[in-house]
Amino acid sequence: MDAMPMDPAARLEGLTAAEVRAAIRRGDYRWHTAGLAPGKLQANLAIFPERYALDFLRFCQRNSKPCPVVGITDTGDPVFRTLGADVDVRTDLPRYRVFRNGVLEGEVDDLKALWRSDLVAVALGCSFTFEHALLEAGIPMHHIESGTAVPVFDTTIDCLPAGPFYGTMVVSMRPIPEDRVTETIEICSRYPLAHGAPIHVGDPAAIGIGDIARPDYGDQVLPRAGEVPVFWACGVTPQSVILNAGLELAITHAPGHMLVTDVDDTAEVPIATTA
Amino acid sequence: MDAMPMDPAARLEGLTAAEVRAAIRRGDYRWHTAGLAPGKLQANLAIFPERYALDFLRFCQRNSKPCPVVGITDTGDPVFRTLGADVDVRTDLPRYRVFRNGVLEGEVDDLKALWRSDLVAVALGCSFTFEHALLEAGIPMHHIESGTAVPVFDTTIDCLPAGPFYGTMVVSMRPIPEDRVTETIEICSRYPLAHGAPIHVGDPAAIGIGDIARPDYGDQVLPRAGEVPVFWACGVTPQSVILNAGLELAITHAPGHMLVTDVDDTAEVPIATTA
Repeated sequence: MDAMPMDPAARLEGLTAAEVRAAIRRGDYRWHTAGLAPGKLQANLAIFPERYALDFLRFCQRNSKPCPVVGITDTGDPVFRTLGADVDVRTDLPRYRVFRNGVLEGEVDDLKALWRSDLVAVALGCSFTFEHALLEAGIPMHHIESGTAVPVFDTTIDCLPAGPFYGTMVVSMRPIPEDRVTETIEICSRYPLAHGAPIHVGDPAAIGIGDIARPDYGDQVLPRAGEVPVFWACGVTPQSVILNAGLELAITHAPGHMLVTDVDDTAEVPIATTA
Repeated sequence: MDAMPMDPAARLEGLTAAEVRAAIRRGDYRWHTAGLAPGKLQANLAIFPERYALDFLRFCQRNSKPCPVVGITDTGDPVFRTLGADVDVRTDLPRYRVFRNGVLEGEVDDLKALWRSDLVAVALGCSFTFEHALLEAGIPMHHIESGTAVPVFDTTIDCLPAGPFYGTMVVSMRPIPEDRVTETIEICSRYPLAHGAPIHVGDPAAIGIGDIARPDYGDQVLPRAGEVPVFWACGVTPQSVILNAGLELAITHAPGHMLVTDVDDTAEVPIATTA
């Protein structure tokens, strides 16, 4: 074994999205999903009782850069019928977070004991899609090179509220070589279902970030000489907003532990042909 | 006066979107909105009681090419707060259609007498956006040249259902020169909130259209030599689906009589900076 950090995802290398989900459902894999089933859409997850769903969808429509909706289950149906073959939201993610009354209660491996007939699950596009596209274009992603989590920051950018859902936008940061910023923006603009174009380039203070060396979530990644910090709306935003809303019950994926769908990363609409 | 058909929209030429809405609100304009406030997003409209809203938004998410959501009001609030300054859905469209129990009851000039505290309004992106972009690129739009309505057809393409909402997709057709079809697809792909890329190019029979000379709605437009028929998912689809659902009450815009918003046609997200 060499000195590189062991990446658990290497165990599932080469598997299809359906095979990845099957391994997770069997309990064989409880780690992050970065790099798994490359080319397939991965999604953030938010689950709550039906009575909050309309306001949450309003919040997502009004804040579609942090919250791009790629799937909504029928009430009580744990299957995302548009995202692939037999995508069961109770068992097919490696780890979940459970929030009660606005407090993170803990993490669980599956939702078999928690699922209820009044729950609605919403899948939201995630940054893995545009990271994959940027890497394909030869634009470096330092956090991936170092095997760490992307740095994520709270900001002072207000989201547009809806019902009980309100809060500030959470962003991720990736240093980009100055001469590739325009290309980065162009590439990301093609993925409106994966946060789209960056929301800010340059001075972190302009969006309320005090110290770029101290992310609120994830790991430290610093721009090198000739690089500029670029900020994207982040899928952690709905988790922050769900905390504020103080819902009786809400469930999300654990950060980095995404839903791996059968939808192609480059699909114009997030509907799996295998579904 | 020359022999050209008089276009009522010429009366509002040069007005801003807010000025167009004010003229409509005053009762000074009851005609189609094609070409008004060029460069601003226009929207299809669907209104119904709150209890249907979650399923309708599910339907739109599962069928985002015919039904791209660009705005959702709070329940009982007649103002689209994200689409511009003082956008009142009761008065700011030139004409509305009222459906009761799955039957078109008639058309009205405003919703002052019909508005209720349980209603939700949904705005959906429309084809005017990509038509504007195609014209800017010098791609001809025959129905605009002739001052007629775009031909619209029922198809045999099933939409994905949600709750009471189901049906087949309705499409619009524009003949495009064969050597500009690729460019047309590229341009339209940039507007996912305005039906995006065409859903079909060529043989009408392949999507269940029996006679391209006899549109189900709109006017006849036929491909000329060297042109191919190109079909786009159409905003009439939600009206067809609302009829099928047989809702107690539903209200839409009258075809061609759209909501003119303050959002730029080219905006990445449909949020007006004036709102």
